Amino acid sequence: MKVNVSGNVVLAKYGKIYRGDIVENAYAEGAIGVLIYTDRKDYGGGGDAKWFPDDKWMPSSGVQVGSVYNGAGDPTTPGWPSSGLCERLSDDDAEKGGEVPLIPSLPISWADGDRILRSIDGQVANDDWQGGKDAPVYKVGPGPAILNLSYTGKQVITTIQNVIGIIEGVEEPDRYVILGNHRDAWTFGAVDPNSGTAALLEVAHRMWKLQEKGWKPRRTIIFCNWDAEEYGLIGSTEWVEENREMLASRAVAYMNVDIAVQGLGFYASATPQLDELLIKATKQVQDPDNSSQSIYQSWIRSSENPKIGRLGGGGSDYSAFVQHVGVPATDISYGEDYPVYHSMYDDFIWMKKFGDPKFHRHVAVTSIWGLVALQLADEEFLPFDYLSYANELQRSVEDLKIELSEKGIKLFPLFNSIKELRMAATKIANEIKVLQDRNVWASVSKNDHYKVRELNDRLMMAERAFTDREGLPGRTWYKHLIFAPSKHNDYGSKYFPGIDDAIEKAKSINTTDLWLAVQHEVWRVSRVIKHASLVLSGQLT
Amino acid sequence: MKVNVSGNVVLAKYGKIYRGDIVENAYAEGAIGVLIYTDRKDYGGGGDAKWFPDDKWMPSSGVQVGSVYNGAGDPTTPGWPSSGLCERLSDDDAEKGGEVPLIPSLPISWADGDRILRSIDGQVANDDWQGGKDAPVYKVGPGPAILNLSYTGKQVITTIQNVIGIIEGVEEPDRYVILGNHRDAWTFGAVDPNSGTAALLEVAHRMWKLQEKGWKPRRTIIFCNWDAEEYGLIGSTEWVEENREMLASRAVAYMNVDIAVQGLGFYASATPQLDELLIKATKQVQDPDNSSQSIYQSWIRSSENPKIGRLGGGGSDYSAFVQHVGVPATDISYGEDYPVYHSMYDDFIWMKKFGDPKFHRHVAVTSIWGLVALQLADEEFLPFDYLSYANELQRSVEDLKIELSEKGIKLFPLFNSIKELRMAATKIANEIKVLQDRNVWASVSKNDHYKVRELNDRLMMAERAFTDREGLPGRTWYKHLIFAPSKHNDYGSKYFPGIDDAIEKAKSINTTDLWLAVQHEVWRVSRVIKHASLVLSGQLT
Repeated sequence: MKVNVSGNVVLAKYGKIYRGDIVENAYAEGAIGVLIYTDRKDYGGGGDAKWFPDDKWMPSSGVQVGSVYNGAGDPTTPGWPSSGLCERLSDDDAEKGGEVPLIPSLPISWADGDRILRSIDGQVANDDWQGGKDAPVYKVGPGPAILNLSYTGKQVITTIQNVIGIIEGVEEPDRYVILGNHRDAWTFGAVDPNSGTAALLEVAHRMWKLQEKGWKPRRTIIFCNWDAEEYGLIGSTEWVEENREMLASRAVAYMNVDIAVQGLGFYASATPQLDELLIKATKQVQDPDNSSQSIYQSWIRSSENPKIGRLGGGGSDYSAFVQHVGVPATDISYGEDYPVYHSMYDDFIWMKKFGDPKFHRHVAVTSIWGLVALQLADEEFLPFDYLSYANELQRSVEDLKIELSEKGIKLFPLFNSIKELRMAATKIANEIKVLQDRNVWASVSKNDHYKVRELNDRLMMAERAFTDREGLPGRTWYKHLIFAPSKHNDYGSKYFPGIDDAIEKAKSINTTDLWLAVQHEVWRVSRVIKHASLVLSGQLT
Repeated sequence: MKVNVSGNVVLAKYGKIYRGDIVENAYAEGAIGVLIYTDRKDYGGGGDAKWFPDDKWMPSSGVQVGSVYNGAGDPTTPGWPSSGLCERLSDDDAEKGGEVPLIPSLPISWADGDRILRSIDGQVANDDWQGGKDAPVYKVGPGPAILNLSYTGKQVITTIQNVIGIIEGVEEPDRYVILGNHRDAWTFGAVDPNSGTAALLEVAHRMWKLQEKGWKPRRTIIFCNWDAEEYGLIGSTEWVEENREMLASRAVAYMNVDIAVQGLGFYASATPQLDELLIKATKQVQDPDNSSQSIYQSWIRSSENPKIGRLGGGGSDYSAFVQHVGVPATDISYGEDYPVYHSMYDDFIWMKKFGDPKFHRHVAVTSIWGLVALQLADEEFLPFDYLSYANELQRSVEDLKIELSEKGIKLFPLFNSIKELRMAATKIANEIKVLQDRNVWASVSKNDHYKVRELNDRLMMAERAFTDREGLPGRTWYKHLIFAPSKHNDYGSKYFPGIDDAIEKAKSINTTDLWLAVQHEVWRVSRVIKHASLVLSGQLT
């Protein structure tokens, strides 16, 4: 609506994009401060709904807090571990990085937002921007109200603590199956993250029981309990940065759980070669809300194919694993978008009354998490399906083709490389089958062990090949060219992040050079897919 | 001497730095063309020496030709393989990369250079710049002579052919021991590269004989015969770029021979963990010029320790392996600085009369090359010595300390990280010893195979950890932070290339920020050494 926010304090409502992007957008338009409030229409359950503790909705005094930092990891150590006596940027230099917010911002409640909103005049906002039935008419200002924003914060460097537990593999101790969850919470954090931490402890406990019975995993299992996730994925990012080279050559997969339970229904995201494994696990676990069916059966109720999200967002601790190093990963939970998110009402009472009264959903997430981990740790051949990856890429390129019709961008490099990936995926599946069939009849020879390892290494390293050492233009920490946040939404890109960014820029400024930049990003993505195909097929050119 | 070359044609003599850097320096000062001639004092054997075919020296009409391109690989495909239907920069964009020469240049003979020199007046050059006794007095101009420089060249894109031969390993086919040599020559190329190509074919022939007797290597051996090395390491660079991900996870070592024989005396360069293996091989091969001693004995005649060079230069096909991917490497030859280098006198007659009359030196290089390859391919534990690496790094930092005294640069991060590398090197050496001792008494179990592989992977991947994905400032293709060309001399940096570049810049402009940039590069190098220590010790933090 071309409202000039320059020199003003902006009142924004929570919505689809990450709050850090809200502040960044406001700053880019010249705002000097931002208040972000919770609009009841979006988070309050509608006009007549009751609120906590009578119902699950957030009270009008509730505030969703949260970081507005747009980077990953400690901003004073960009790209390297913030550990020991290390190099550290000055505050000034950290601010030049473009990821630290440069204007003050404050999250406020629905009640406070409503009050401010009533003092704003000017044009009436579009219908889709208006609030619920009790809300005032949304107008866009500026003013006439004058808002005095006083903000007092502390800027400190402090020590954080990741807790790492290891069950060493007996056959392949140098292959890592990693489970991770964060421990820090904004207030009580019964949902975020304690539901996940409970699940992590329970998986560890069950594996301890298995060990008591004599079980030892083939590969090493690592439990990571991250600190400072809420401040910008700091615990996991710094650990990944510190152990980058080891993880790049040894990590089989990373399985994240942030919030384990926030409501009803199973939700999963994964890098696509893990789709099938996840689906298989959901068939083995009983639906916590309907004991007559499996989680899988309730999961596909609404559609024929289970809907699996992707890990392009910056929303949790899988980010550094997937987007910086290229480790196959999963992220699972029960429920989505709980209304008391990041507020002081996220407590045990809320969980007990609304989130998971019988705590069966906790058990369900734990079971799936543990089953997936066990298979990754113990199966002779890694249960990775790259045909699923090729199909996912194909779908994205088909969408891209529609978006780019009549823009003169050639997509054949992508289609060709995906074809090669599909061939490689079929080739390795056949090779594995041959070896599996043979082993039924013959005793396993020494060379078979190396052959199994060779095949598994190809499966493991193919994901790494989707990363490019140069990274994304202007934000080189993001090395993965398939999955990453887009520049203007930390929650994830539409397609391939580099192509997505380039399209957005080309559309807004529309010069020949910018459309050529889109073509260049298309080539770059096709090249990493080609690399992945070579790795997967185990071939040199 | 502050001579203004702007708008002039520069007459330069061949000297210590790479000819491409000569042209770049002239261009940077505004010159419009460059002639580079061979000064007899430097390349002619002195005033009374005879020349080819009477003696080994270059005739006065001889011209050293060669590339003046300052990059590695096809300049139209920077960082990606120039293969098939690929993305390709326009000539304009390739020129913007800063590595393609932007003014014409021409190599000329001593006779022609002498003639031009006699027409130049102006200040008399410094004594150390003057020529031999028959040379005119060197003056620096400009003019008074006017030089008409006409240059007719063709700019074409053409197909090149690498030839790759493979002996598949029986136990670990997915570990690559790679031998490489280029095939293209400026004219006849008896020395450069045919002496090397002869050696490569002979190693292949000997290994064929071994195979006839039933030998099969434990690991895969790959023979690479590169094309277009003389145009900027194009064949090897493009192949490495195409197979980067496979090489990064599978290449044990790359052994280069460019010129195998150009005269007397054994010369070797290596990444330092291969020093001991090279030395051992020289003890097993007879000195081709004195049958009563080993090559090792003649090699150390002049000093107690054999002098092993490093692979920081851009001089031959090891560049992409070491500097782009971080593969341990060696480069060996007999003789150095032969006078008919890159001229039409580099022919069979020259080799037969002066280079290697009995061709025993060819045999010696072949023997060392083959012995090193066999040990890398067959030894159960990779014969890598990282204590040697730590010592080499320590020496470089000691030199750096002298250079930087009183500049306020803190070197403790480097000293600390080298200490960690030393500890890791000792740790892995002990682990290998324990396993070797045990295997004498017990039959080898399945898990031992994985343990051996785990130790070897640590040895192999530690070199990779010296690379940083961001690369060197301003020339990000160079990923290795220990060995790379320096910005102003393609033949190699003095110390760590990023630190070296930063020091050079800081010294010439001398601002606080530029000295802080030196400190930043010190931190970066210390971090890759730390990564290498973690990989070598096989530990997560």
